[in-house]
Amino acid sequence: MNKTPSPNVAARGPVDHEVRDQIVAAATEHFRLYGYEKTTVSDLAKAIGFSKAYIYKFFESKQAIGEMICSNCLQQIQTEVRAAIDEVDSPPEKLRRMLKALLEACLRLFFQDRKLYEIAASAASGRWPATLVYEGFIEQTLREILLLGRHSGDFERKTPLDETTRAIHLIMRPYFNPLLLQYGLDTTDEAPALLSSLILRSLSP
Amino acid sequence: MNKTPSPNVAARGPVDHEVRDQIVAAATEHFRLYGYEKTTVSDLAKAIGFSKAYIYKFFESKQAIGEMICSNCLQQIQTEVRAAIDEVDSPPEKLRRMLKALLEACLRLFFQDRKLYEIAASAASGRWPATLVYEGFIEQTLREILLLGRHSGDFERKTPLDETTRAIHLIMRPYFNPLLLQYGLDTTDEAPALLSSLILRSLSP
Repeated sequence: MNKTPSPNVAARGPVDHEVRDQIVAAATEHFRLYGYEKTTVSDLAKAIGFSKAYIYKFFESKQAIGEMICSNCLQQIQTEVRAAIDEVDSPPEKLRRMLKALLEACLRLFFQDRKLYEIAASAASGRWPATLVYEGFIEQTLREILLLGRHSGDFERKTPLDETTRAIHLIMRPYFNPLLLQYGLDTTDEAPALLSSLILRSLSP
Repeated sequence: MNKTPSPNVAARGPVDHEVRDQIVAAATEHFRLYGYEKTTVSDLAKAIGFSKAYIYKFFESKQAIGEMICSNCLQQIQTEVRAAIDEVDSPPEKLRRMLKALLEACLRLFFQDRKLYEIAASAASGRWPATLVYEGFIEQTLREILLLGRHSGDFERKTPLDETTRAIHLIMRPYFNPLLLQYGLDTTDEAPALLSSLILRSLSP
């Protein structure tokens, strides 16, 4: 019974999330070409062929659209990192994969597409909610790998888990935060292997 | 015989390095108040009371003055870090002191004096010679501490010294490079202790 859509909803034409997705897709394309900072909601409306008022029905501001785009990007990074980790069984290897995949995904998303970098940078400096979710994912994934390794005997168990997690998070930060990564592009070749090895030495039982 | 100054030199009034120091001191004060990027050599000349031509006799450009100021700042950091390390004997403690003193000196120099931060940022992004000297100092100091610790038996000796030095350098980088440090100001309370402890665990024999 309660699954039947009300006549009102059925009469609304395309459902909300479809329109939202359409706006986000068009905005992503537009920002990619013309940049995020310089584009206004009016520019966007003109380019997409919707009225400004119609866009405001779905997003309260340009930042709200930027947040959705950013959230999609960060979600993609999370999916790739998760896949890279799941490909291997040993906890030390999972940790190596995590840093490598994280860095590769960030480099591709933030720097090959220089215009999208602007959104990521705004997100990171403004502490948008998507950024907090992303940081939470990194913290949580690290914690899981550490727990697995402590259980398997690959990693030491004396240091409090919170301390180890946080310290490794800090070491990885320059490679997953776009604001820091922009100033470390000359270190990205050597960093993943060097840092993973040092971290793994610090975890040895 | 060859120590007697020639009459020509004696007639020149204040020796060159005194005038250079005078210009640098006045420029430091001026940049501190009005910023580095916006100030021209003409502004500087007016403020100091020298002619522009006279300043150009001693420095070929504004950047040359900026480099001297920057070099003085970085020299001060190096002196402080060296003193902090020399206060203790144990290599692990020297390593802790190094990261802590480096961060404290950078925070004070680059961020309490926000206008001087601009010079440091230009130096770091332009890879000015003073920056290379500073990075060389960090690499060299790390290497010395690691060698001491390998000799005393505090640190393991299996990992190639170059690899360990470089990896620790990368971990410390966000805390001594002003461009990175500006985006990590919320981590500076916890970072030195957490990172030093992790690094020391990685060095245990």
